[in-house]
Amino acid sequence: MGSAYTDYPPSLDSAQQDFLVQKIKDWSAQNGLMIRPGHIPKDVDPNGVLATNAPVTVFPSPFPRSCFEQAQGLQTLYNKLYAEITCDVEWLSKIMADLIEVDDFVSRLWKVHQAVDKEGYAQTLSLGLYRSDYMPHTGPSGLSLKQIEFNTISSSFGGLSTRVAALHTELLNSPGYPSHPLLDSNKPPANTAVQTLAAGLAAGHTAYGPSKSTPALPKCILFVIQDGERNIFDQLAVSEQLERVHEIPVFRLLRSEILEHTSIPASNPARPLVYTPPYAKDAPYEVSTVYLRCFYAPTDYVSERDWEARTHLERSAAIKCPTVLNQLAGCKIVQQVLASTEPDHLKSFLSETDAAVIESLRDTFAPQYDLNGRGRELALNPATAANHVLKPQREGGGNNIYKTDIPDFLRSIPESEWKRWILMELITPPDAKNVALRSDGEVLSGNVISELGIYGTILWDQKTRGRILHNEEGGWLLRTKAKDVNEGGVATGFSSLDGIILF
Amino acid sequence: MGSAYTDYPPSLDSAQQDFLVQKIKDWSAQNGLMIRPGHIPKDVDPNGVLATNAPVTVFPSPFPRSCFEQAQGLQTLYNKLYAEITCDVEWLSKIMADLIEVDDFVSRLWKVHQAVDKEGYAQTLSLGLYRSDYMPHTGPSGLSLKQIEFNTISSSFGGLSTRVAALHTELLNSPGYPSHPLLDSNKPPANTAVQTLAAGLAAGHTAYGPSKSTPALPKCILFVIQDGERNIFDQLAVSEQLERVHEIPVFRLLRSEILEHTSIPASNPARPLVYTPPYAKDAPYEVSTVYLRCFYAPTDYVSERDWEARTHLERSAAIKCPTVLNQLAGCKIVQQVLASTEPDHLKSFLSETDAAVIESLRDTFAPQYDLNGRGRELALNPATAANHVLKPQREGGGNNIYKTDIPDFLRSIPESEWKRWILMELITPPDAKNVALRSDGEVLSGNVISELGIYGTILWDQKTRGRILHNEEGGWLLRTKAKDVNEGGVATGFSSLDGIILF
Repeated sequence: MGSAYTDYPPSLDSAQQDFLVQKIKDWSAQNGLMIRPGHIPKDVDPNGVLATNAPVTVFPSPFPRSCFEQAQGLQTLYNKLYAEITCDVEWLSKIMADLIEVDDFVSRLWKVHQAVDKEGYAQTLSLGLYRSDYMPHTGPSGLSLKQIEFNTISSSFGGLSTRVAALHTELLNSPGYPSHPLLDSNKPPANTAVQTLAAGLAAGHTAYGPSKSTPALPKCILFVIQDGERNIFDQLAVSEQLERVHEIPVFRLLRSEILEHTSIPASNPARPLVYTPPYAKDAPYEVSTVYLRCFYAPTDYVSERDWEARTHLERSAAIKCPTVLNQLAGCKIVQQVLASTEPDHLKSFLSETDAAVIESLRDTFAPQYDLNGRGRELALNPATAANHVLKPQREGGGNNIYKTDIPDFLRSIPESEWKRWILMELITPPDAKNVALRSDGEVLSGNVISELGIYGTILWDQKTRGRILHNEEGGWLLRTKAKDVNEGGVATGFSSLDGIILF
Repeated sequence: MGSAYTDYPPSLDSAQQDFLVQKIKDWSAQNGLMIRPGHIPKDVDPNGVLATNAPVTVFPSPFPRSCFEQAQGLQTLYNKLYAEITCDVEWLSKIMADLIEVDDFVSRLWKVHQAVDKEGYAQTLSLGLYRSDYMPHTGPSGLSLKQIEFNTISSSFGGLSTRVAALHTELLNSPGYPSHPLLDSNKPPANTAVQTLAAGLAAGHTAYGPSKSTPALPKCILFVIQDGERNIFDQLAVSEQLERVHEIPVFRLLRSEILEHTSIPASNPARPLVYTPPYAKDAPYEVSTVYLRCFYAPTDYVSERDWEARTHLERSAAIKCPTVLNQLAGCKIVQQVLASTEPDHLKSFLSETDAAVIESLRDTFAPQYDLNGRGRELALNPATAANHVLKPQREGGGNNIYKTDIPDFLRSIPESEWKRWILMELITPPDAKNVALRSDGEVLSGNVISELGIYGTILWDQKTRGRILHNEEGGWLLRTKAKDVNEGGVATGFSSLDGIILF
């Protein structure tokens, strides 16, 4: 097992590296494994036509088969767990209470829920397109699977990841690809992320039922997106699948233009969300499903108008992917509460599930604490802090505090703010190396760590707790970054999309 | 008929144009309808990662169905005609004699043939990937199809054109696409250019038979390409099809590196062409088929070493696409000789073909002349010159002299050079308009003219005249340029790839 990582990847002479890098560049542009470049001055490309390859590894990284299969096997249960949590508003409100006090963003989201709840939700179906993120952890008893986070909003990279799997599969078959025992008769596992994500959205679209407008309008799915989105081709892979395979009209709407181009007729108590394309004013559509690829972070709410827009979507009859409640269920605090066993929330949420299966899911939790009691002790003592990471209680990467920086950091902020943070035991992934092509064409190689994401989708009725209309697992993401880089999303070039070789 | 052109395309308001242009930009990057940009300074993109959309029209252009079907119907006969011409080396040598005298490029090509002929050709199979180019001509009796040129080497844009057809088909189905009677229940005809071109190369690969090396080597197809090729994604569409569908290994080799990476073992009288990838020196391949995407113009021969490389390929056992002789058969002088009926070369080359079919092919010839007799009179008189274009006797676009510039131009060069030129009656295409997106993102609209290309492939035995192993028609190209632009290839942004709406 150790040797899979240490002897890998095979070394490259300069002719081999030139060939592989050129092949990846060309393949990427040929097959839409692209992003809009971030490193090009506006005056060089005033019309925004340029595209460049997404950052990718040259080799697929080895990943333990047992961990991969465990993650796949748990996904529909994880889907169900987060649906159940989202249905239990009382439980969620208790968990959130502390955070609402100190976190303005969470507080505002909760108020959106409260406002819509007061009026009464017009739509009880709720759609989740999730990605559960893991790392393999090297412990005394070998490798085990540990969850990093569970994403309930804007779970990205399914589109590009599907293409990376295809790229690596083709590279492995290409003449002159360097050989290694791990690569013989082995190829990346099938990656159905695009199909899975699109099928989830299509399930929502179908379940929405007939138009609630009079006269009836044609239905569509609406992708709500950020201005200047560079990761657009990831999103287009999913909408292309919806249009070509499911034959569902898909529109893209900027977050900043929601109120301008959508409306809810005041006279219609069913509250259909009507989208009128600015370029086809006489052809309005009724939105069956709103897919948010924005609104996950405070930076997406620049003014009150954005909160108004979010509330507007929430109160409409469109199925939200996700609802505000489902977004909040993705906060790290939920993960942390689930990890504690007194009381055993997991068991009560998954009461119909076999105990052994629940334990397999529980095994993926890394030890994690709030900053009371045990967590406080571990965080303030430099010796124990060295084995931990401090993460914001909210969803989303970034802003983590690592190891011995933790005690000083905590002392530098008011203790009333400590509720914003959770302490997680550091995961120790196996040593690994890889070579990566950045989106500016630079080639990097060295020590890396990889994070696995497994995609899943679920559609449920929030009113009739437990009524699940669609629950699927499918597709994966491997993101690999240089080992000394603590932060960084794929689109910024600090980390790369990767493939998988199971061992 | 006239109205199809004059009321078309539908007008766009700015919201419609913005939407369509953005959709085209995004679709292009998502689906490989790309070129490497020509307008980006090297220091902005030192690693050559950027790509941009190929120049395309926003609307597919109307094209007369009768002309389109005539062109499709004639393609396999045109394939056969140019195979027959290439087999009749005596005839070809007579036609070329004058040109060889005055044109150094043609003379050098002919010498390559002579040198290999003297040694004896190691391969008698010959492969053509052709594109016959036409315009619809508005004459007194309505629209007729007139041939512009017949390309026997490096016939390009099949890869991108297939994608343009897919783009326009999707646009036509997209909500909010402007309506027009021509577009109702109408879509671009199927475009199978990629499949056809790849199937032609695959036919060559198969017909090559077993390896001629001892021990036997695995076989491959070799694309020989130019340095700094910007139109690479057009080529990759064909190689991707060969690799994915036909499962044939394909390599790309720079023209400038032929002699470095290929060899013909002196000890092997069968003269197999062995390609050793620089990145896999212990895994040589035997080249079944050499596909030239270079060597069509004098600029591809910068030194004697390039002529040596061309000769090296020609004397090998690899099937050439095309051979030197087949390349020479594409010279305009051949077109001009075929157009004259005394003697009736067409009838003798196509002796087994029905007379009516031959006449349909002959109808596609525009009146054209060498600069003796009638041609001389027409060219020197400004009144008649105004209805003509002067073209080099060689294959390839560019360097044409138009209309009233002709008499002065001819007087400015020695009369001994006049043999280099042919005079063609100008074709008068119908008035048309379109909107085009350039590869730098600028949007142009106005009067346009379009040129249709029909692809065909043929594999024949040069030794056994008439033995045809493969003869297919399939796929098309429509290239559209601003009406006042006389010259320009698509890749430079002066003209655009277009779709077709038949009427």
